[in-house]
Amino acid sequence: MAMFKSSRRLSCLSTETLRYACSRSFSTAFREERDTFGPIQVPNDKLWGAQTQRSLQNFDIGGEREQMPEPIIRAFGVLKKCAAKVNMEYGLDPTIGKAIMQAAQEVSEGKLNDHFPLVIWQTGSGTQSNMNANEVIANRAAEILGHTRGGKIVHPNDHVNRSQSSNDTFPTVMHIAAAVEINSRFIPSLKQLHTSLHSKAHEFKDIIKIGRTHTQDATPLTLGQEFSGYSTQVKYGIDRVLCTLPRMYQRKFFFEQLAQGGTAVGTGLNTKRGFDGKIAEAVAEETNLPFITAENKFEALAAHDAFVETSGALNTVSTSLMKIANDIRLLGSGPRCGLGELILPENEPGSSIMPGKVNPTQCEALTMVCAQVMGNHVAITIGGSNGHFELNVYKPLIASGLLRSVRLLGDASSSFEKNCVRGIQANRERISKLLHESLMLVTSLNPKIGYDNAAAVAKKAHKEGTTLKEAALALNVLTSDEFDVLVVPEKMIGPSD
Amino acid sequence: MAMFKSSRRLSCLSTETLRYACSRSFSTAFREERDTFGPIQVPNDKLWGAQTQRSLQNFDIGGEREQMPEPIIRAFGVLKKCAAKVNMEYGLDPTIGKAIMQAAQEVSEGKLNDHFPLVIWQTGSGTQSNMNANEVIANRAAEILGHTRGGKIVHPNDHVNRSQSSNDTFPTVMHIAAAVEINSRFIPSLKQLHTSLHSKAHEFKDIIKIGRTHTQDATPLTLGQEFSGYSTQVKYGIDRVLCTLPRMYQRKFFFEQLAQGGTAVGTGLNTKRGFDGKIAEAVAEETNLPFITAENKFEALAAHDAFVETSGALNTVSTSLMKIANDIRLLGSGPRCGLGELILPENEPGSSIMPGKVNPTQCEALTMVCAQVMGNHVAITIGGSNGHFELNVYKPLIASGLLRSVRLLGDASSSFEKNCVRGIQANRERISKLLHESLMLVTSLNPKIGYDNAAAVAKKAHKEGTTLKEAALALNVLTSDEFDVLVVPEKMIGPSD
Amino acid sequence: MAMFKSSRRLSCLSTETLRYACSRSFSTAFREERDTFGPIQVPNDKLWGAQTQRSLQNFDIGGEREQMPEPIIRAFGVLKKCAAKVNMEYGLDPTIGKAIMQAAQEVSEGKLNDHFPLVIWQTGSGTQSNMNANEVIANRAAEILGHTRGGKIVHPNDHVNRSQSSNDTFPTVMHIAAAVEINSRFIPSLKQLHTSLHSKAHEFKDIIKIGRTHTQDATPLTLGQEFSGYSTQVKYGIDRVLCTLPRMYQRKFFFEQLAQGGTAVGTGLNTKRGFDGKIAEAVAEETNLPFITAENKFEALAAHDAFVETSGALNTVSTSLMKIANDIRLLGSGPRCGLGELILPENEPGSSIMPGKVNPTQCEALTMVCAQVMGNHVAITIGGSNGHFELNVYKPLIASGLLRSVRLLGDASSSFEKNCVRGIQANRERISKLLHESLMLVTSLNPKIGYDNAAAVAKKAHKEGTTLKEAALALNVLTSDEFDVLVVPEKMIGPSD
Amino acid sequence: MAMFKSSRRLSCLSTETLRYACSRSFSTAFREERDTFGPIQVPNDKLWGAQTQRSLQNFDIGGEREQMPEPIIRAFGVLKKCAAKVNMEYGLDPTIGKAIMQAAQEVSEGKLNDHFPLVIWQTGSGTQSNMNANEVIANRAAEILGHTRGGKIVHPNDHVNRSQSSNDTFPTVMHIAAAVEINSRFIPSLKQLHTSLHSKAHEFKDIIKIGRTHTQDATPLTLGQEFSGYSTQVKYGIDRVLCTLPRMYQRKFFFEQLAQGGTAVGTGLNTKRGFDGKIAEAVAEETNLPFITAENKFEALAAHDAFVETSGALNTVSTSLMKIANDIRLLGSGPRCGLGELILPENEPGSSIMPGKVNPTQCEALTMVCAQVMGNHVAITIGGSNGHFELNVYKPLIASGLLRSVRLLGDASSSFEKNCVRGIQANRERISKLLHESLMLVTSLNPKIGYDNAAAVAKKAHKEGTTLKEAALALNVLTSDEFDVLVVPEKMIGPSD
Repeated sequence: MAMFKSSRRLSCLSTETLRYACSRSFSTAFREERDTFGPIQVPNDKLWGAQTQRSLQNFDIGGEREQMPEPIIRAFGVLKKCAAKVNMEYGLDPTIGKAIMQAAQEVSEGKLNDHFPLVIWQTGSGTQSNMNANEVIANRAAEILGHTRGGKIVHPNDHVNRSQSSNDTFPTVMHIAAAVEINSRFIPSLKQLHTSLHSKAHEFKDIIKIGRTHTQDATPLTLGQEFSGYSTQVKYGIDRVLCTLPRMYQRKFFFEQLAQGGTAVGTGLNTKRGFDGKIAEAVAEETNLPFITAENKFEALAAHDAFVETSGALNTVSTSLMKIANDIRLLGSGPRCGLGELILPENEPGSSIMPGKVNPTQCEALTMVCAQVMGNHVAITIGGSNGHFELNVYKPLIASGLLRSVRLLGDASSSFEKNCVRGIQANRERISKLLHESLMLVTSLNPKIGYDNAAAVAKKAHKEGTTLKEAALALNVLTSDEFDVLVVPEKMIGPSD
Repeated sequence: MAMFKSSRRLSCLSTETLRYACSRSFSTAFREERDTFGPIQVPNDKLWGAQTQRSLQNFDIGGEREQMPEPIIRAFGVLKKCAAKVNMEYGLDPTIGKAIMQAAQEVSEGKLNDHFPLVIWQTGSGTQSNMNANEVIANRAAEILGHTRGGKIVHPNDHVNRSQSSNDTFPTVMHIAAAVEINSRFIPSLKQLHTSLHSKAHEFKDIIKIGRTHTQDATPLTLGQEFSGYSTQVKYGIDRVLCTLPRMYQRKFFFEQLAQGGTAVGTGLNTKRGFDGKIAEAVAEETNLPFITAENKFEALAAHDAFVETSGALNTVSTSLMKIANDIRLLGSGPRCGLGELILPENEPGSSIMPGKVNPTQCEALTMVCAQVMGNHVAITIGGSNGHFELNVYKPLIASGLLRSVRLLGDASSSFEKNCVRGIQANRERISKLLHESLMLVTSLNPKIGYDNAAAVAKKAHKEGTTLKEAALALNVLTSDEFDVLVVPEKMIGPSD
Repeated sequence: MAMFKSSRRLSCLSTETLRYACSRSFSTAFREERDTFGPIQVPNDKLWGAQTQRSLQNFDIGGEREQMPEPIIRAFGVLKKCAAKVNMEYGLDPTIGKAIMQAAQEVSEGKLNDHFPLVIWQTGSGTQSNMNANEVIANRAAEILGHTRGGKIVHPNDHVNRSQSSNDTFPTVMHIAAAVEINSRFIPSLKQLHTSLHSKAHEFKDIIKIGRTHTQDATPLTLGQEFSGYSTQVKYGIDRVLCTLPRMYQRKFFFEQLAQGGTAVGTGLNTKRGFDGKIAEAVAEETNLPFITAENKFEALAAHDAFVETSGALNTVSTSLMKIANDIRLLGSGPRCGLGELILPENEPGSSIMPGKVNPTQCEALTMVCAQVMGNHVAITIGGSNGHFELNVYKPLIASGLLRSVRLLGDASSSFEKNCVRGIQANRERISKLLHESLMLVTSLNPKIGYDNAAAVAKKAHKEGTTLKEAALALNVLTSDEFDVLVVPEKMIGPSD
Repeated sequence: MAMFKSSRRLSCLSTETLRYACSRSFSTAFREERDTFGPIQVPNDKLWGAQTQRSLQNFDIGGEREQMPEPIIRAFGVLKKCAAKVNMEYGLDPTIGKAIMQAAQEVSEGKLNDHFPLVIWQTGSGTQSNMNANEVIANRAAEILGHTRGGKIVHPNDHVNRSQSSNDTFPTVMHIAAAVEINSRFIPSLKQLHTSLHSKAHEFKDIIKIGRTHTQDATPLTLGQEFSGYSTQVKYGIDRVLCTLPRMYQRKFFFEQLAQGGTAVGTGLNTKRGFDGKIAEAVAEETNLPFITAENKFEALAAHDAFVETSGALNTVSTSLMKIANDIRLLGSGPRCGLGELILPENEPGSSIMPGKVNPTQCEALTMVCAQVMGNHVAITIGGSNGHFELNVYKPLIASGLLRSVRLLGDASSSFEKNCVRGIQANRERISKLLHESLMLVTSLNPKIGYDNAAAVAKKAHKEGTTLKEAALALNVLTSDEFDVLVVPEKMIGPSD
């Protein structure tokens, strides 16, 4: 700590931040970096430059937990590599270009994560994270070329950021990061959940159970039918998310529009004609996702409606999953004083005071995640609605919110599938007992004796605690044989011929 | 009032409700209607029956403003007409069937609106509104057949509601009402707005103006480019809403899935095989919209994810429109102390105290509507996530929320287009003055003198209040001729060759 | 219709609006009214003037359902009466002043409601509703003085709006309307609900039942204890709302700050010193509520944080009521296949297809209302956050949203209390049966045999379907007598001595 | 890695998680720990036990970023220390009790943070984090007493968790953590911001500027008056948050109610009489905050309305800060093409492509934080409304959401104050220029020539581009001298005498 000479105002740092700073080896020596605001001290063992350092000092908000999400950092690696490649076509010195590509590749692989210390809560254009990427890549490229850090042999703006602006790079990495995360993490998790629910629907297809509407006893259905509702919800959920991805898509499906090429305000100033298309192609090749260049760059910088829309799809998925998880925990409630129709896997002790208690904890984790996704959706909506003129400056909020929702919802679905759905068993004995006690089997009498008479039967049985049959006979509305022919749960689970 | 014999607990009615009750002619005589709970007094001049009357008394929530939206009532007319038609194929007495069809037609045309007094805030399945429709149609059909009201010659349950349950009729009318409103009211309004913004983008295509990012001066673009961003947002918004409609659609586009045929819990108990498909066909024919029967009836009763999703699309449209309206009012701010680049139509005096003041009132109405739509979206999301077992019981909340959002957003877009966008003029003089004062034209020097030198030029000009050229020459970074060749706004509005 | 000469653009009016317009007697003759924009035709039988008519034509958004809430109209009556009274102290001609007071009194009593046709979705300052009030009162006062409408003997701006601006009157009526509604409608409803829940807590104080955590069986408590949790939530809810009223209150409690006296931007231009205090006193006297003048008029015009805060309190009350209503419907689920611990009042038939079904419909209406209040809260929050400079222009949205929340939550609480809570009965037999079957009574063994042994007992009993006692004896962890002494539900409902 | 023998399903771990696992030294040997589910391998260098390990494996959701917030961990230290202290009074072996106190003290100081690996997204009661605390403290206490880890000399349940349940400990640590963070971090930041805004209000008290309503020119006020609105908003915001803290408080202020003593369902089973009060006293002493025991433990476990309420206060503060930050960036817009009335501090380069650009980045960070807080509020509201029976199982969501909002809002306010507000300067020249060009000075003519004439003057001047005086003289509505006496901005900033 003796060598800590940073200009950071130490007096106002929280102890946590200090601890963090130390653990991140600020204790080594410092070097001087410069930007248009002048010189500033930067820790020697870090690749970042002056603008990153300023942001670190000017935005002491939230600490380490609030750092820009890793998928954004990696996407910067992808983009800067592609930009260097395309810039070489437009005249960038190949020596420098190749070094940039190599350095950017390292960023895209997560190898330089420790050099990206900035938090989400910075400038709303993400300029400082773009500069962080530019500075780290410039310094790393300089090293690759045998030079020292901070020398600007490779210039963060003139070389790494060439033909770019934060205003087009940040939306571009937002789209890359979101598309990669959704495709690699979220969709597979939901598909697995769908498969598992679908299997259960099949497994339970012959188990007839009482239905419940308004939480009250209703006519019967099969447990498989009940689960088919869940699996349909998840199937539609996957469609919903996939459908939003290509808002933007010119063609049919799965194409994310990239803002790159719009530079500062969408016009493409300081790029050459064709740059935008080439860079989208390069990114598509690099990520194996069918990106194209945005149809209208002004929209792509000034609004993030595509993120609001995708967040809306995640919000819908959350309502589905909350419904499913709620049902499963209520159907599995008990073991003796609840509904008890399902037996959920026991994964861990449920209570620190009640011995032997087992709880539907996977349902709880999932429903909490759903609530958070709904909240993030509101935050993203507010951020999305508040753009001004040529630029929306809620980009880091929007990007981090969506990425968090995608990650949490994907992981929680996966956890729920593995640790709960997959192991659900039907409590056949309990299901059968409840089914045959129910009064709502009376509904199948409607076509025969009319709604009013059927109601009288049900009410009498309820009031007197008898069976439906006893009540029906007592009321003389049909014979014992007629009753037996009509009230058959097995015939109540579909239309009649 | 002397004849007011209703069992309604008068003592607790608000004066407003009383006034409303009176204006609705409760002052005439009453007749007795019956349901499975027994007899009840109903105003003689009303077609509704016992269950409607009970709901009216049990749910004194919010008064007349909170009545079930009219599109729901009309959709009940459509559905009950179609159900009678299909039921006749399955054995319903044609005399009764035809009378039901005629009565239902009157409901679908809004002729019997006064007989639908129930509020949104009733049972969450909408059962009471379904019974309201059944009772009104039964009584009206009885009259058509020459009988008196209340006689149950045409039975609300056994005839009008035949093969149906509230649990499948209410979701069905939700879908009919929403599809009709979106197609007939919302989409045309948004298309008109898009056309108008698109025309403005064309009209303004040669007006070069200063760009603004972070609300600060940035590089130039054309006013047409700026409006092209807006028109793109609206175009995508239309796509977004259309894309959600057919979640459900089996085929390509525009097919709404109908729950009808699921009856109480989704199994289709008490229907005949094929009923579901036939009724969807009948509704499709009646409405001229490509409805199909729901792929999975369990999902269709227990969840309203499709409404949450469509609401999410409206939410996205709201973020777009809020952004556009905000920009337009800020660009039109002034007349002397604001940005003043746009001249907005003057529609009315703006202030009760400041003479001559004109305000961007259409922007204000539209942005208020957007905020309400965002709020409704949260309400719909919460309702959508809280279904239990075989039935979601937030149906009236969800339906009324979406219909309100559709109506308000459509009407406000239309009003905004007619009374604002269409008449926007560019203040060319002001735009030109601001453009030429801006320091951000310096950006075009980057490729020539580098970012750091260009920054020095801009900072010097800013500090000393001079032009960029004066600063550039003073710093000796380029010649007067070089400057004149490079700093040309007309060249800054797109990529270079 | 032949005489319909309004300048309203008929071609673009919806049929609904037309119908509404006609029903409102536009069919009579028209007179000319004028404002600073020139002459305009106004229906002869209406008291409104030129600016109201313009708004009616320029804001065709949502139709009749979306009119400015009545409490706002009445509050305008209160305010304008008080303003005339105070203005007479400052030199307003007493003949005119008294006529204004009389006309305003009529507005405050709701007698002139038909003359307030404007919708919420107008200018965001509410200027047009303020002018509507000014125009109606001016014309009515002119009539009182024996003159004809439209003559401006009493001038809407110079007399009725004297010393006022929309920018201070509208926030003032917002506060008056909200305070009146909360005090007269909302608080009494919640107090009644609290009383009722509290009575139930007392009534059920000796009924021991199984507890449920994670929806799973847990240790016992009394049904009275369970209801005491509910009544505490409602009690705190009342406190929460009351506490927000006087944010601002200078003194201790219950004082709403009024913006009146700030005029256009908060400075009080065109008022005389002391006007603001006097008018707050007059309103306090008129309403019998302890209003004071706002401490800072700039905050009072430019922000509506007080409304956001109060809406936040209503949002909290909604979470409470949703929890309570959810519990009650689940505890009352059945009658044979649910938890069945509570017997809820039967108010109406529950199903159009399932005879004899009774549903927890009051719980459903209440929880739907809660969801709407949560949604309104988001709308109000967004509106509250988007003020610009000296004026927030989301006033009608904010006001109407809060008033709707207050009304719905109050009415629904009242309905829930009367039609549900009051009549809840305990199903003692069922409660006792479940209690004695539960395995979680094992918890009382912890202090004696330790958590691990107790868990083994519970697990064994669960696995083998036996009683706890049987399992405990089989495991030899304690004697039969010891078990009987320890496992006594009556001793498990509080700390031990 | 060779020694990695954990039962964790390696195949499904993300690379990130693996990396994290490794960095956390799983590479050392493992020991066996046991719970009621049997044995499990735990890394030797970690103090946690079997239940923590199970949770780690069962809830692979979100990775390291999603760990339970540190203030919760520390609060567990506080609580467990206090519980041991009180338990000794009730018979806990003092040797064990003192060791627990020492170990808990280490937790409360953050020294054992590395032993708390669990994520937010676990069981909704927080049981697993409670057990994590119990296990870590038990093992650490055993070490202090000279025993090895895992031996259960100090038992996690029977000793550390004695007289407690997760169901009362977790709400208790929620309250402790929130109260500590609000008092130590949030309130001081807001007070500093208030002070700074208040100073600016004073500093700018003589600078007369144009007002703006509807974003349009309005009557003048002083820049100090404008800032006084902001400082009032922040002052009220502090009050708002403070007022919610003691919902619960029996006495006057600042008392948080603690759930501790309710154990599993609120009854206090397995505690001794008086335990609840004593532990609240102990916590109050330990934290120096006036905690008391909850009035009703059933409410305290089953609902978290107090958190929803406090979140509502933070939501209101967010609307205030968003308004303030928006105004400041718009008033500081430019430097040449915006409003330009304020000069904001320049903290860093603003653009990677536009040299010399400086942006209102602190406003952007703050407004993004505000949007996130609004989103969190919705998540917390949803979580708060979804409790079932005796327990709300959204506790970790609610706790982490509120703590994040508190932290972000506090830090961002502090950053905004230090790096923006403190250094704001008025651009007096620009302010004066705009003021004197404005047409709205015409308002001061109303009392003299009436609203209609004044409007004519303003409209003429606007249309012809002249001064108000020129227009007034041309219209002959007053003399030059009269005009000069009436139109004096200095007289327009308050009521007249």
